[in-house]
Amino acid sequence: MCWFRFSLRFQEMVFMQRRNFLWTSVLGTGLTVLPPSTSPQAVAAEAGVPGDLRNKAKLRFSSQLGIIPGTNEEEKLKNMKNWGFEAVELGGIGNNVDNWKKKVEDAGLLVSVFCFGSNNGDLCSDVVEKRQPGIDNLKRQLEGNAKLGGTGVIYVPAFNGQTKLTNQEIHKLLLEFLPEVGKFAVECGTKVVLEPLSRWEAFFLRQVGDAARIAKDCNKIAGCDGIGVMGDFYHMYNEEADDMGAFISGGPLVHHVHLANGPKRTLPGQEEHSFVQGFRGLKYIGYDKFVSFECAVRGDDKETEVRKSLDFLRSEWEKS
Amino acid sequence: MCWFRFSLRFQEMVFMQRRNFLWTSVLGTGLTVLPPSTSPQAVAAEAGVPGDLRNKAKLRFSSQLGIIPGTNEEEKLKNMKNWGFEAVELGGIGNNVDNWKKKVEDAGLLVSVFCFGSNNGDLCSDVVEKRQPGIDNLKRQLEGNAKLGGTGVIYVPAFNGQTKLTNQEIHKLLLEFLPEVGKFAVECGTKVVLEPLSRWEAFFLRQVGDAARIAKDCNKIAGCDGIGVMGDFYHMYNEEADDMGAFISGGPLVHHVHLANGPKRTLPGQEEHSFVQGFRGLKYIGYDKFVSFECAVRGDDKETEVRKSLDFLRSEWEKS
Repeated sequence: MCWFRFSLRFQEMVFMQRRNFLWTSVLGTGLTVLPPSTSPQAVAAEAGVPGDLRNKAKLRFSSQLGIIPGTNEEEKLKNMKNWGFEAVELGGIGNNVDNWKKKVEDAGLLVSVFCFGSNNGDLCSDVVEKRQPGIDNLKRQLEGNAKLGGTGVIYVPAFNGQTKLTNQEIHKLLLEFLPEVGKFAVECGTKVVLEPLSRWEAFFLRQVGDAARIAKDCNKIAGCDGIGVMGDFYHMYNEEADDMGAFISGGPLVHHVHLANGPKRTLPGQEEHSFVQGFRGLKYIGYDKFVSFECAVRGDDKETEVRKSLDFLRSEWEKS
Repeated sequence: MCWFRFSLRFQEMVFMQRRNFLWTSVLGTGLTVLPPSTSPQAVAAEAGVPGDLRNKAKLRFSSQLGIIPGTNEEEKLKNMKNWGFEAVELGGIGNNVDNWKKKVEDAGLLVSVFCFGSNNGDLCSDVVEKRQPGIDNLKRQLEGNAKLGGTGVIYVPAFNGQTKLTNQEIHKLLLEFLPEVGKFAVECGTKVVLEPLSRWEAFFLRQVGDAARIAKDCNKIAGCDGIGVMGDFYHMYNEEADDMGAFISGGPLVHHVHLANGPKRTLPGQEEHSFVQGFRGLKYIGYDKFVSFECAVRGDDKETEVRKSLDFLRSEWEKS
């Protein structure tokens, strides 16, 4: 049974449970009575919008360290904790796993993902000999991420110019080697997270739905769910037709989210960019993993700007 | 203002109106009271699921003529009318516009779309001289479709092997020539409808969301809405991660739908293929254009099979 059918059946079940709940109310009293303080969104969720997992969704903040003010990593992590972040997104961390584990734990934070990237496109290189060392490095990152209790490792198949393979050949190659890497990730206790980018960065993979179908096909081959996907609001601004549709296409495969505005990739709230439609998609799929800053900050007072951005995003979440 | 922002604002407005409606109920009585016969779906729509246009959606049947039994076109059209179809989907019809106009009107049907195709990939050919004649032919089809009162002309950029251009080059080329063709379509009173196909037919365009972003970008350049998209449930089975997400990504650009099962492309109901999740997407975006059979029929009694399929689809629509 592929996850699509499972997902459908799961959603049907949720729907049926809600329907039964309503029927009970209806049969018992002849009326469904809702308390006056109930918001339209809550009413909608309770009313059994088919497949809607709104009540499960949570807004949980993470960030890369670059935009966080502080004289050293310890101070940055401490600031993050104080301002309401739950997790930190790290780059590849080489052999410093124990060192980072202590720092993050001391700050009372979690690790969201490693932002690994493409490893120079080696895993999808037209030079066949480069591929296995690339896969081996991705596996090392997965092991490190799992040791830190992280949720996954972001992987980009290839930036433009890093391989001579055609889109069709890269697609085929991913279906060949990723299932095994996905199994390895599951054994470690973490995931590979495919990141779609803007066309001028990586034309091969530009939309959440495309990444999601690759992930779904790989997971079906592997018989596990080691490949996930993510959406970056900046790239989505450049590539998606609708942010809500994109996240629903990702469904249970959506495992991480990057926060930034389009078109200038600044801190949310610093450009006129709405997150409401995307957050609606995240709520619909019951997203409860991390949303993480990957953006630039305008202004000198970074603390004020970052805290304002968190408030802005909470308000967008409420509206969605 | 791009349509995305407009769409968002429109959805906000609908949402606000619904919220006001609810507030009135809440303030007036202290309770929101729902009649016992209201279905969960209707409750959800009334309750103001943000952006949900469910109440506008309709299931309106069309078909290509191939699967309809009848000794000639007139008889096939008459059968379609009797069995509940509203429209017929035609191929390119050359110079027979007046002839077809009479046949379709006599039967009391409408024309949905012309299934034009790629014109041998000429519009995206690596042989530059082939492109303009291809565009001219597409325009002739648009004129013919408009004369018949049709809603659009299905266009496939290129089947595999029809062009030596890379995916990136085809994408760029479409953004160059399609805006002007879209303007022409609007002037005629019809649309170009981009069709995503399965990877083994046309790797360039495989997902509704990808087609939708191309259409959106072209329409923004042209300042009108002459480029639309469609989803074919068979190809979606092969290429989409989630049918609901795909249609929400298409949003107001979704202009036609093909009905067939995956994986064997038979008549809906003849394979174990659910249409519920896709129909949920169509309901969410308030889809009220045609859904049209493009599939094979199993069994000798085509009338029985086609009518059973219509009933099956109505039942899937109800469940969605």
